[in-house]
Amino acid sequence: MKEIKIFAPATVANLSCGFDVLGCCLDSVGDEMTIRKNDLKKVRITKISGQDLPMETDKNVAGVAVLSLLDHLNENQGFDIEIDKRIKPGSGIGSSAASSAGAVFAVNKLLGEPLKHKELVQFAMKGEFLASGNAHADNVAPALLGGFNLVRSYEPLEIVSLPTPHELRMVVLHPLIEIKTRDSRAIIKQNVSLKKAINQWGNLAAFVSALYTEDYALMGRSLKDEIVEPVRSILIPFFEELEKISSEQGALGFGISGSGPSVFAMCKGDEVAAEVYKSFKKFYSSKEIEFDIHVSEINKTGVKIL
Amino acid sequence: MKEIKIFAPATVANLSCGFDVLGCCLDSVGDEMTIRKNDLKKVRITKISGQDLPMETDKNVAGVAVLSLLDHLNENQGFDIEIDKRIKPGSGIGSSAASSAGAVFAVNKLLGEPLKHKELVQFAMKGEFLASGNAHADNVAPALLGGFNLVRSYEPLEIVSLPTPHELRMVVLHPLIEIKTRDSRAIIKQNVSLKKAINQWGNLAAFVSALYTEDYALMGRSLKDEIVEPVRSILIPFFEELEKISSEQGALGFGISGSGPSVFAMCKGDEVAAEVYKSFKKFYSSKEIEFDIHVSEINKTGVKIL
Repeated sequence: MKEIKIFAPATVANLSCGFDVLGCCLDSVGDEMTIRKNDLKKVRITKISGQDLPMETDKNVAGVAVLSLLDHLNENQGFDIEIDKRIKPGSGIGSSAASSAGAVFAVNKLLGEPLKHKELVQFAMKGEFLASGNAHADNVAPALLGGFNLVRSYEPLEIVSLPTPHELRMVVLHPLIEIKTRDSRAIIKQNVSLKKAINQWGNLAAFVSALYTEDYALMGRSLKDEIVEPVRSILIPFFEELEKISSEQGALGFGISGSGPSVFAMCKGDEVAAEVYKSFKKFYSSKEIEFDIHVSEINKTGVKIL
Repeated sequence: MKEIKIFAPATVANLSCGFDVLGCCLDSVGDEMTIRKNDLKKVRITKISGQDLPMETDKNVAGVAVLSLLDHLNENQGFDIEIDKRIKPGSGIGSSAASSAGAVFAVNKLLGEPLKHKELVQFAMKGEFLASGNAHADNVAPALLGGFNLVRSYEPLEIVSLPTPHELRMVVLHPLIEIKTRDSRAIIKQNVSLKKAINQWGNLAAFVSALYTEDYALMGRSLKDEIVEPVRSILIPFFEELEKISSEQGALGFGISGSGPSVFAMCKGDEVAAEVYKSFKKFYSSKEIEFDIHVSEINKTGVKIL
């Protein structure tokens, strides 16, 4: 195989209760990437459409991720990477993670799969480090593996894949204002009260339990964040109003996707998701802010070959 | 039914990664209690053997728990409570929780079970408040319900019951020095670094996942506590040495039971548990400190009628 075309999905990290350790994979939007072998022993970004992003390999998240993978494999095969960037950078739904994850997935495939998908996470994280100054895994892990994923530990890196209740839907609204993950991280306090931390880990543990038992109501009650959301939500226009609408329309829970500004409403079933979608759209259309909105199933497979 | 005799089991709270929210129930040791109706419209502690504890109803954890239950039920039936106290107070294996849980279980039974076991937790917590100044539920919930239990939230109180992998064994060593939960709580810092909190909730979430998937190795890797253990372990004689022995003998993990001084080694299977037991016993016998030690299965039912 010389060339491969892939879909690299968007992801929702944090999910309120799981700051920096939890994420899930979407199906509704993703980058399309074509990666082919070249004879130049060099990794090149040969084309980027859809967004204005760096073409220099060492300044592009996909480029950096691939370079670190090839370095690990001691491999001097060259690759050309074309990115049709469908996920807007700074949207909070894993834009950099999608390109990083997609690129290492494709290169690994073209090299005959020397590594398992889980082993690729660490290389995709290099792209995250370039994008945000923090090598977090809560977007790249679900992008590569699909479904819900938990980062148990960063040192050493350990990813735990969780089950996906089949009726879950995500309504994602992206107000078209840009918040850099780097800036959004900077406003978070580096110390938290033990009381709030206890609430947070109680909720996260309950959310994980609820994924196993398919207890949708418990998922909803567990989608709480007393630590990061109160600070970050200030940056998101009409956050409280959306939360209220989400609750009124029967969503299980509502929160910030990653570092924002995208927000998500987690819903049980297509019907509720459609109502939340409609109500969000109606409300935000009356405001002065452009936005994207979509409904997604949970993508169970992650990056896929087109 | 006028009289009931019950076994009120010891419990291990916190379990390293789940400070204040996680606990499991033991089978090896517990209080024996006899509760009978009286015609005095009064709750009396009529006998306590095994330990020297308050006989005044409103100063005894079982008494206080029963009073709050009767108050809630608007019930003026009187009860006599006899406690054969087998769990040493201040041991860190839920001594006060056992008596509180046992008492409300028995009274509820004698009244024809107006409440479910889960609903009894809040009344048993009144005993915990009396004992430690903190109405925690991570001992009383497993004592009443058996198995592993998670406190998702305190306000409102919500208990999530988790599965019990059948090969789990607990080796519990109790150095006979007393640490009051109250004192042991006082040395904990009320603020924690966000980084450590993230590690903690990653580990707890992974532990919960591992209970569902019966991934014993993952349970072991998740039994970490960077927040409370480093402070509390200082109060426990030879903590580090026991940890080392536990690891050498193949235990899944090791930590402080509740607020200590008891420690636990979580093991897979009887064989490993027997080795850890033997090695702990040998090591501690060479020291100047008296101790209790026992091996327990996870008690899946909680308080039971004798």
